[in-house]
Amino acid sequence: MEESLHDRYARRLGKLAVEVGANVAAGQDVFVLAMDVQQAPIARAIAESAYQAGARYVTVLYWDQHAKRARLRHAPADSLGFVPGWYQQLIADCVERRGAVIVVWGDPDPELLTDVDPARAGADHMPLTPSLFAAMGGGEVNWTFVPGPCEGIAQRLLGTPDLDQLWQLIAPIIRLDQDDPVHAWRDHLEQLELRAKQLAERGFDALHFSGPGTDLTVGLSSRARWMSGGITTSWGRATVANMPTEEVFTTPDARRTEGTVRATRPVQLLGGGLGEGLRLRFAAGRAVEIDADSGADLLRASFAADAGAARLGEVALVDGTSPVGRSGRVFGDVLFDENATCHIALGSAYPFTVPDLPDGDDAQEAIGFNRSAIHQDIMIGGPEVAISGIEPGGGRVPIIRDDVWQLS
Amino acid sequence: MEESLHDRYARRLGKLAVEVGANVAAGQDVFVLAMDVQQAPIARAIAESAYQAGARYVTVLYWDQHAKRARLRHAPADSLGFVPGWYQQLIADCVERRGAVIVVWGDPDPELLTDVDPARAGADHMPLTPSLFAAMGGGEVNWTFVPGPCEGIAQRLLGTPDLDQLWQLIAPIIRLDQDDPVHAWRDHLEQLELRAKQLAERGFDALHFSGPGTDLTVGLSSRARWMSGGITTSWGRATVANMPTEEVFTTPDARRTEGTVRATRPVQLLGGGLGEGLRLRFAAGRAVEIDADSGADLLRASFAADAGAARLGEVALVDGTSPVGRSGRVFGDVLFDENATCHIALGSAYPFTVPDLPDGDDAQEAIGFNRSAIHQDIMIGGPEVAISGIEPGGGRVPIIRDDVWQLS
Repeated sequence: MEESLHDRYARRLGKLAVEVGANVAAGQDVFVLAMDVQQAPIARAIAESAYQAGARYVTVLYWDQHAKRARLRHAPADSLGFVPGWYQQLIADCVERRGAVIVVWGDPDPELLTDVDPARAGADHMPLTPSLFAAMGGGEVNWTFVPGPCEGIAQRLLGTPDLDQLWQLIAPIIRLDQDDPVHAWRDHLEQLELRAKQLAERGFDALHFSGPGTDLTVGLSSRARWMSGGITTSWGRATVANMPTEEVFTTPDARRTEGTVRATRPVQLLGGGLGEGLRLRFAAGRAVEIDADSGADLLRASFAADAGAARLGEVALVDGTSPVGRSGRVFGDVLFDENATCHIALGSAYPFTVPDLPDGDDAQEAIGFNRSAIHQDIMIGGPEVAISGIEPGGGRVPIIRDDVWQLS
Repeated sequence: MEESLHDRYARRLGKLAVEVGANVAAGQDVFVLAMDVQQAPIARAIAESAYQAGARYVTVLYWDQHAKRARLRHAPADSLGFVPGWYQQLIADCVERRGAVIVVWGDPDPELLTDVDPARAGADHMPLTPSLFAAMGGGEVNWTFVPGPCEGIAQRLLGTPDLDQLWQLIAPIIRLDQDDPVHAWRDHLEQLELRAKQLAERGFDALHFSGPGTDLTVGLSSRARWMSGGITTSWGRATVANMPTEEVFTTPDARRTEGTVRATRPVQLLGGGLGEGLRLRFAAGRAVEIDADSGADLLRASFAADAGAARLGEVALVDGTSPVGRSGRVFGDVLFDENATCHIALGSAYPFTVPDLPDGDDAQEAIGFNRSAIHQDIMIGGPEVAISGIEPGGGRVPIIRDDVWQLS
């Protein structure tokens, strides 16, 4: 029997997630978190590759957004922040034993929570808990996010549950159609590293975004590095944070964002739900005005989650060579859309971007390093948005014009 | 839009599992273990009903037998007995907080592990670990097993993935087609309780099974009670161990099984795999000869798992009024088939059958109470098998003849 397109690409994606994404080491425990049961073929391919790579135990966990919906509709309000002990244990073990985490991303039904009270939805962080983000940000865990193509996503994107059509769209974006995807990824990561090096050499004090509805200055942190999605754990394991990845990014100074910005793509809330036409105004680092064509209440609840939820934790640059951007398609999914174009994120900054990050909330606040339970990407780039670097002396250097990278 | 047969019965089954099966109490945490992702509609209906019943948190876990297969094929041999810490924590929390456990049972692909080395398969107890059975047997947890009809099971049983056809078979068996399934279940449980009372009053010393290939004497424990599937937790919560349930059962004396027995239905191993035409010979309580038409190696490995794996932990009586038996169908699934007809189980006995069960292995061994990591049901009843009770003085009393219950 000939292998179907779906089977072949699922197998290749499993191998890529294990060998390049998380780069699983022999003897590791691996936590595979699939966002939906429809993604079982991908999760199984990952388990197969992980055990072949010498994993000790692979936990495959299928998140169930329908069960979450039942919780948000019926559970006692004071219980919604509860994270079960077993889940905290799973994450703690990942950190303690230096385990691997592979998230199979993608929501076949993002509308599922739209009729749920946003305040209740905002209280429930399962399964993307602060503890999970802390584990991934902390340097002990080798982790990656990969897409989980499934019938529901095909239906949402293409209007048909035909998985082969979905793979034809996605395979080039994650380079699965290349003769040697692992080799193609090594080349690609080298190119991104070069961009991060160019930005580091310039030593910009701030970035400026200019376009329709957008006049935004993002002050950068002198302590933070420019990085690509290629991340190395504290114990020297080279990983890729997400696949696809087309960005270079750094941690801004959470006190120095000023001006207005209009999202150029829909915002997909991590807790479920979609916000379209988001407009923000920042003053002294904080989003003081939040408006949107749809989902404004949900967005406001999310950005009110805690003190850091309305400040920036990340800024990322992507130009028009991105295969995601070139596909011309809005995926309604942060994993793809954030790699189509430039973005900022409200909420938590990544500790690995700041060498010698001081311990403690106060010390981190003092250097403008943002802390929050959320990390919400917002796409703000595209052909109409000009991005410049602002030098410490005030000079402006073009970084992206007409979606083309300008530095060399 | 009219509710499909599948949606209606899934919803009713969810309600029945929560309100009658586990009898979930307000404030409880609930652990829903579904054996396959195809059973998501049932798991979701259970989560919905559990939250409506006031549950604090419902953990929905989808077991993945494909990931288990990858483990059994590739993981280091000395790692196969490993149970992840988070899973032990989940079970420990159920016991400590008096949580509920609902298992959505049924394997869409029991052939999946047939080509795996039986010794390796026997070493891996996930997810039906000794700790889970101990939690269910220990009296603190309210638990139930319910079937999880899904496409794969429909395909296996009916040769078509048509779920509506499968529900038409299964709904009468679990009384979902009745006007008030909850009321129907209360009536049914009363009838089973009456049988348990009749057996208790007789005070039989042993049971005798006689039929083609079968001449088996099962010595009973004078310490053990006759019970129905209606079980009450240590804190007074009335539950039903499994749905369907048609049996009355007790704990035999693990030292006093003698003779030969031929299984009248295929044996479905808990770790996956099927054994057909199983024949056993017992001496002084132990299965000393194990043969089968297929799966003999797998069965032998299972019954060699530990010292108690070749001794009886349960004997159960079911007559021909059972709707499972009347369906005339072999399900290849213990949850149904054990309710079609009489059965014995090799492996662990149920602690709740013995009031004032002494603590410690030695003390339990001294009263013939069997301990093991396994609990493997084997169907041995049917119209051709005559079952008698043996009184302490040696007199024989018919219990079942021609599949008809004889006691009154």
